[in-house]
Amino acid sequence: MTEPVATVLRPRLTHQGALILLQAAIRKADEMLLPQCIAIVDEGANLLAFVRMDGAKLLSEQPTMRKAMTAASDRVPTGDKDAALGDKLASASDGRIVNLKGGLPVIVDGHVIGGIGVGSGTGEQDRIIANAALAAFPGATTFDYV
Amino acid sequence: MTEPVATVLRPRLTHQGALILLQAAIRKADEMLLPQCIAIVDEGANLLAFVRMDGAKLLSEQPTMRKAMTAASDRVPTGDKDAALGDKLASASDGRIVNLKGGLPVIVDGHVIGGIGVGSGTGEQDRIIANAALAAFPGATTFDYV
Amino acid sequence: MTEPVATVLRPRLTHQGALILLQAAIRKADEMLLPQCIAIVDEGANLLAFVRMDGAKLLSEQPTMRKAMTAASDRVPTGDKDAALGDKLASASDGRIVNLKGGLPVIVDGHVIGGIGVGSGTGEQDRIIANAALAAFPGATTFDYV
Amino acid sequence: MTEPVATVLRPRLTHQGALILLQAAIRKADEMLLPQCIAIVDEGANLLAFVRMDGAKLLSEQPTMRKAMTAASDRVPTGDKDAALGDKLASASDGRIVNLKGGLPVIVDGHVIGGIGVGSGTGEQDRIIANAALAAFPGATTFDYV
Repeated sequence: MTEPVATVLRPRLTHQGALILLQAAIRKADEMLLPQCIAIVDEGANLLAFVRMDGAKLLSEQPTMRKAMTAASDRVPTGDKDAALGDKLASASDGRIVNLKGGLPVIVDGHVIGGIGVGSGTGEQDRIIANAALAAFPGATTFDYV
Repeated sequence: MTEPVATVLRPRLTHQGALILLQAAIRKADEMLLPQCIAIVDEGANLLAFVRMDGAKLLSEQPTMRKAMTAASDRVPTGDKDAALGDKLASASDGRIVNLKGGLPVIVDGHVIGGIGVGSGTGEQDRIIANAALAAFPGATTFDYV
Repeated sequence: MTEPVATVLRPRLTHQGALILLQAAIRKADEMLLPQCIAIVDEGANLLAFVRMDGAKLLSEQPTMRKAMTAASDRVPTGDKDAALGDKLASASDGRIVNLKGGLPVIVDGHVIGGIGVGSGTGEQDRIIANAALAAFPGATTFDYV
Repeated sequence: MTEPVATVLRPRLTHQGALILLQAAIRKADEMLLPQCIAIVDEGANLLAFVRMDGAKLLSEQPTMRKAMTAASDRVPTGDKDAALGDKLASASDGRIVNLKGGLPVIVDGHVIGGIGVGSGTGEQDRIIANAALAAFPGATTFDYV
């Protein structure tokens, strides 16, 4: 029998890294004239950085944070689940697992190091802005939302 | 008139029993290369043991616990309810009764002594792993998920 | 100006590591004839492993988890705060920051990689069991509770 | 009888203003080698910006946000209330009104336009960092914490 592996070395998202994502998302949102709530969480789905831009929807704060959390947990973009499954998981997680578009995992070297959530626009707009943030992050995997 | 029966003798799941289930579920999940959240509850639907394997979905913690709780309470596998009824019960229980696959009752000698919940894969995968755990438990009833 | 550092390499606690802590705590609790709730969280204060031993206090589940979370967050043993400050932080965190003895950070190579919480005994007993678990973990910093 | 005044002109804190506060607080925290959670809220006590610096206490997130909210609401620095009154208000507000040091109102031209909360250090350290952020904000009233 092999020895149990008690710890592993993994990349961790820093607050400076989170601010890179935040600033890049703000730039893209400004460019698209779409004020947004933007949330960055780490691998543990804990909040690292947040901004609510002037004109963004106030009550998008929580859904935006949960998009980031869900993306970090699921390791895939949010909002593509079957509707019935999405509803069940939302209920079973007290609303924390969301099935709204606009959350993307932050993946570097194949490791999920966090998530970004964007909210206030349509799901498609939110995804484009989140993806533009990933494109500004050194080594991060991007998606097909442009 | 007969005497009222104030107490009855019932088998109770121990923490050692819970760890047998946990370890067996880990082995099966390892074998299937599917990291999972695994929860074991006793007959009172209270948590006895839990593990989140490396790579399992972080936010599956709560739904997984609720699968185990629902299975112990319903005394049948979770996830087979009519969708509309499932939604109503989820709402009426503040999300505690889940209609997601992956929860199985632990039944010994016809007595429900607890529940096991598995989550992070598809419902079918979750069921197979939960069932493999039951197969490792002395005298436990197993189901047709293989 | 220096480049922002977007990611850093850090050791992460695995589920196998969490089970080492759990099993060592169970052994010590058995040896002391003190059944316990035992919780292990990772660096993000998310639950990795849990057990409630036969005879442990049922309602210690949540306080035990929160001891582990608080230790991982504060990076020092729990329960040594000034009483008034402890009360204020408990209230300000909806009860998540606890000022109960029995939570210890898991520290390897100077990095906090998680926390262990033990609950059901006196605070002093809980600390001794948590510390015995740390002593069984490869390279973990231990404390003066024996 | 005079006409009722249905609206008034008031300065409002922008997200760019919030980021000025956030960045100045990060600089001061870096200078003091004290990683912090930092939260900025607007006049409605709603979150505008947040960052958790590497090494800050994870569970300080919520207390920090509540320091900012309480400062914006009370219009004076947090943490100076009589202890008994502080406890009563905490209870009556479900923990939202905090009596912890580290929250300061953002006041421009005599108008409270928001609040800043800083948390992870001692109350005195938190205040110094929050005040340094105010000093970097055009026209903001500062306090005697240095």
